[in-house]
Amino acid sequence: MPDAVDLIRVKRDGGRLSPGDIRWLIDAYTTGAVADEQMSALLMAIYFRGLDPGELRAWTRAMISSGERLELSGLAAPTVDKHSTGGVGDKVSLILAPLVASCGAAVPQLSGRGLGHTGGTLDKLESIPGWRASLSNADIIRVLTDIGCVICAAGDGLAPADRRLYALRDVTGTVESIPLIASSIMSKKIAEGTGSLVLDVKVGSGAFMPDVATARELAETMVELGNAHGVQTSALLTRMDAPLGHAVGNAVEVAESVATLRGEGPADLVEITLALATEMLALAGIEADPAAALADGRALMRYRAMITAQGGDPAAELPSATHAEVIRATSTGWLRVLDARAVGVAAWRLGAGRARKEDPVSAAAGIMCLAKPGDEVAAGQPILELRGDDPGKFGRALEALDGALEIGPEPPEPAPLVIARIG
Amino acid sequence: MPDAVDLIRVKRDGGRLSPGDIRWLIDAYTTGAVADEQMSALLMAIYFRGLDPGELRAWTRAMISSGERLELSGLAAPTVDKHSTGGVGDKVSLILAPLVASCGAAVPQLSGRGLGHTGGTLDKLESIPGWRASLSNADIIRVLTDIGCVICAAGDGLAPADRRLYALRDVTGTVESIPLIASSIMSKKIAEGTGSLVLDVKVGSGAFMPDVATARELAETMVELGNAHGVQTSALLTRMDAPLGHAVGNAVEVAESVATLRGEGPADLVEITLALATEMLALAGIEADPAAALADGRALMRYRAMITAQGGDPAAELPSATHAEVIRATSTGWLRVLDARAVGVAAWRLGAGRARKEDPVSAAAGIMCLAKPGDEVAAGQPILELRGDDPGKFGRALEALDGALEIGPEPPEPAPLVIARIG
Repeated sequence: MPDAVDLIRVKRDGGRLSPGDIRWLIDAYTTGAVADEQMSALLMAIYFRGLDPGELRAWTRAMISSGERLELSGLAAPTVDKHSTGGVGDKVSLILAPLVASCGAAVPQLSGRGLGHTGGTLDKLESIPGWRASLSNADIIRVLTDIGCVICAAGDGLAPADRRLYALRDVTGTVESIPLIASSIMSKKIAEGTGSLVLDVKVGSGAFMPDVATARELAETMVELGNAHGVQTSALLTRMDAPLGHAVGNAVEVAESVATLRGEGPADLVEITLALATEMLALAGIEADPAAALADGRALMRYRAMITAQGGDPAAELPSATHAEVIRATSTGWLRVLDARAVGVAAWRLGAGRARKEDPVSAAAGIMCLAKPGDEVAAGQPILELRGDDPGKFGRALEALDGALEIGPEPPEPAPLVIARIG
Repeated sequence: MPDAVDLIRVKRDGGRLSPGDIRWLIDAYTTGAVADEQMSALLMAIYFRGLDPGELRAWTRAMISSGERLELSGLAAPTVDKHSTGGVGDKVSLILAPLVASCGAAVPQLSGRGLGHTGGTLDKLESIPGWRASLSNADIIRVLTDIGCVICAAGDGLAPADRRLYALRDVTGTVESIPLIASSIMSKKIAEGTGSLVLDVKVGSGAFMPDVATARELAETMVELGNAHGVQTSALLTRMDAPLGHAVGNAVEVAESVATLRGEGPADLVEITLALATEMLALAGIEADPAAALADGRALMRYRAMITAQGGDPAAELPSATHAEVIRATSTGWLRVLDARAVGVAAWRLGAGRARKEDPVSAAAGIMCLAKPGDEVAAGQPILELRGDDPGKFGRALEALDGALEIGPEPPEPAPLVIARIG
């Protein structure tokens, strides 16, 4: 039988763990034979030494094997999902799932909740009265069969070892490791049972990956991992320096998603949504024009059906905030910078996000970006509108926005939203 | 207040921890505010990133401050101690403490127990009927005052944080880090209250440090740390490729120590003992000839008084083993290699050492080296005699000795026992 200390030392000294070693480590961690303090030392050694492709495949496979795997092969339509590494104002999933479903694919979008300055898809949808994030496996398959798309919570049964490992990484400074990030994301997506997967790897101030090189490495690692496990996978690297669209929060992002499904979306949000939809449909082997599905209302109908199937009322009024505060342009010129991270942190502080997993979020809190980088602005013009129910929270939110805006005499250099495609 | 995850990330990313950070980490680990899994991740980050001299001083100071410090400044004689990083057949402390005391110094030799293939001084002395390793602080000072030397267990009150950290390192693959080894050894020695200290840093197959460069780095780190904390410190790097002397075990090493104190010691053991005694007396500022103290019986008298003061009967017969097995030379020539680690492991498997802290050790088990590297041997001549009470243990002990002997047509190159002096 392998010995935990020996295996930690092998990795620490730059050696290679066999698939059997890795399987044993994950299983023994699950049963408690490998202790938290041993796993965290191993995770830190992996932070420094990495995992080679073979180790990474075995690590991911062991996490998948720690739980159940959703069986979606009985569906008539090809399955395709999207995963984003997280950004500010990133409500793409809400639009994309019904859009791609309306073109003929089945989209099983099993999601997590927001933590930190980026919002969570489930938190956003929960601002719709009656909508339920938790579905049984049978319900997931029923909604997918009937509607063609579902956005719901990934159950505790999928890759439970990853859940424990992620909680451990969070308190031991071992989150920022490309193989550990890649295997955490991919083990859940592979266990979800999708046939193909498009990754939206975000780069920039509002993303977890600060630079293109690191984001590319993560994207390549995940694409390789997905394909090795039989999930057709590709990735887009997309820019996340400013919030996506105008709304940042929960109810406000649902409203903006519905507007986009009505054909009234902001240009950047529409561009990224269509790029991802095109990629998903290509992987699913479906020839269809997603722009047309957005324009003619098919995607919106599909959205309403999906919300209704999960107990929500798509016509219900969304919660709105009792308090607001406006930040205005201090000079006339071009808005050059609207820092995504600062806006994300401010929305979080207003109550849109949570600091701990068990915290509730406010549906109404958020920020409206009334101008975006590249817009011409006049001194005194409102740029940001902060919204929330708790006036005591505005002070620290405003602090987060200190220095977030830059207005200059020249427009900013245009920068493409989609930086690269990988896969 | 500092945050554990932030501090782990600082060290992980190659940053520097302030003395306040380090003090907080050790204190918070002691109270449980920093969890085992956080400390083990930090220890692994330290394994990779190291600690600079300022961090190492702060780390060591924090471990000393976690407990009490022995007050020896009331003694009339200058205090000087020796610490060995551990070798096979290393019974030097048993001879050295009374020898240096007989020359006028006070030697507070607070020791640990053996773990793994190297023996422990306390385990060896406990083969003497009646001898007690545990003394109160008052008893330690009384024996030091009356006899001039004491060899006893380091109490739980000295550097308790190091005790917990060492147990954690042992199960998390973070033992082999020079700053962590140095601070662990030095925090206990500084807390012990000695005025000066000589380190015997062993190099070679039977030592924890496999090469001279690593041993030198450890020695330099510890010498700097001792001097920074007001303990005059120097080190000798000594060779540990073959067992020291002829006896490896507990009772057999006591018997060889007494023979050495009677002037009948093997050459290598006498050479290292005198080199360390000379170094200790120099640091203590005492002009004396340790060779004379060994020759004229003063050191032996001091040894008997020390054993008696701790309840032992120096005249009592030592336990002897019921079973023996002999390994003979398979050819005629020169004994070129007698591998220290193999002999240490074999003696350990015979029962002389322990695998877990709570295991008992056998007083009688051990190995007699009837020839040493550099001796001329004839085919069929006994080279090793294995001794023990449990015949079932001889098989695995013999396995450990497979390939441990090398006989050739030429004598080995002479190699000095003392490789270098540092300090």
